[in-house]
Amino acid sequence: MILNITTIHEADDPCLEAYRNIREKDLVGRQHQFIAEGKTILSSLLHSKEFSTLSLLVVAARLLSIMPILKETKPTCPIYCVPQKIMDDIAGFHVHRGMLGIGERKKLPSLKKFLQNLPEKALISVLCGISNYESMGAIFRNAAAFASTGIILDKTSCDPLYRKSIRASSGAALSVPYTRGDDIESIITALSNANFKLYTLSPSATCYLKDAKATKHTALIFGIEGNDLPTHILQKSETLRIPMAYGFDSINLATVSGLTLAHFADFDQLN
Amino acid sequence: MILNITTIHEADDPCLEAYRNIREKDLVGRQHQFIAEGKTILSSLLHSKEFSTLSLLVVAARLLSIMPILKETKPTCPIYCVPQKIMDDIAGFHVHRGMLGIGERKKLPSLKKFLQNLPEKALISVLCGISNYESMGAIFRNAAAFASTGIILDKTSCDPLYRKSIRASSGAALSVPYTRGDDIESIITALSNANFKLYTLSPSATCYLKDAKATKHTALIFGIEGNDLPTHILQKSETLRIPMAYGFDSINLATVSGLTLAHFADFDQLN
Repeated sequence: MILNITTIHEADDPCLEAYRNIREKDLVGRQHQFIAEGKTILSSLLHSKEFSTLSLLVVAARLLSIMPILKETKPTCPIYCVPQKIMDDIAGFHVHRGMLGIGERKKLPSLKKFLQNLPEKALISVLCGISNYESMGAIFRNAAAFASTGIILDKTSCDPLYRKSIRASSGAALSVPYTRGDDIESIITALSNANFKLYTLSPSATCYLKDAKATKHTALIFGIEGNDLPTHILQKSETLRIPMAYGFDSINLATVSGLTLAHFADFDQLN
Repeated sequence: MILNITTIHEADDPCLEAYRNIREKDLVGRQHQFIAEGKTILSSLLHSKEFSTLSLLVVAARLLSIMPILKETKPTCPIYCVPQKIMDDIAGFHVHRGMLGIGERKKLPSLKKFLQNLPEKALISVLCGISNYESMGAIFRNAAAFASTGIILDKTSCDPLYRKSIRASSGAALSVPYTRGDDIESIITALSNANFKLYTLSPSATCYLKDAKATKHTALIFGIEGNDLPTHILQKSETLRIPMAYGFDSINLATVSGLTLAHFADFDQLN
């Protein structure tokens, strides 16, 4: 196996530009790139057929621990090897996981194409206005864990390839198929036209989640915590409730998505 | 209604000492106090019979929005009213919720007393080594939402009254009964002696969560994500699994706790 490993001793080496001031770049964006951190997520990135790895930055002392993944995936990209101090100086904070990677974004399919390419039986999550990166990541993680088919984001939802989202997704942001539609109305229309049965969750619903049956094409629409989805969306879907304590009908969005996906999941596809 | 409102125009007013440099104090601790932020959590604090409110700090423009809660709870503590700029200068960051409060901690009951005071039917979560404040808060939130009886922390778990935990709990950290035991072994022994049926979750379990039945006294033991609990703990409990996708048996701890509590919850106590 030939690995393209370069040892670097200077924090100002231009090869490492993409890794400089990570938090600042988190804010201004990285155009067609994203950053992956830690062994679990680098493993997802290196195994991905959808995303290519542009480079890796690994603390020398951690090189051995990632070697099995490198042996398995045989990346041809540059692997920069640095002391921890240089890693921290470049990143702008202490990178305690000791390894980072730059991935290349892919062009998302159009909503039309995304729907055309779905398997015969599909369980989709539709996210409307989700702005919290941890919630976004956790929803991808749930989607992967419960073997659901994919995720559609409305135009106002945040980026699942933001560093914190990928981390919270435990790498699922790099494996669960997704695309971004326009506004939620147009997404709902497209799903209806594709014969999807639409569900929303609401504490005021009369039907319980446990009584809902999965159909061939099921779409679960999730909005922001505490904000009910617009009435016309609720009207186009069947609303379900999760039974909760009187006076405290509130769990976080990730948990709502977990409970709902676990309910609708195809048991045959699970372990 | 008499409210003890004081308008303050200077960021260095000694009355506001407890609110100064919130993030720094998050690290070094506040001894017998804790900080609550935002309307939902201040409402929980002001309604609490367990915790007293020592003072409130409210941006002048937000006073009207919290007035209904003040009318309902009639606090006698000082309410400091400041411009947003003073609030931000004191706190050390932009407090976009515009309201903070200082609560007084209570002495936690001993584990023995906690177990003695449980109702006839009890559903308890036991947390072992949980160090993430958001997970801690979310587990309290789930405990409240699914009307469970309370929470026992081992000595290595983090503080549920840390600012970020209370926030993630949506105020449930101030309402769900809890205590802190010593090491997990002694907690397990105490629960066994009190006739608790003990459950742990593990991807390698043979029994499914959905097939487990709640007993009069049920305790759910949760450890850190990715780390199985020690073998002797697993041996003393029945291990259950949540069916997940082949190769991605990973959801976050809050979601695990939500799924498990939702399963074991007493449906009669839910809405």
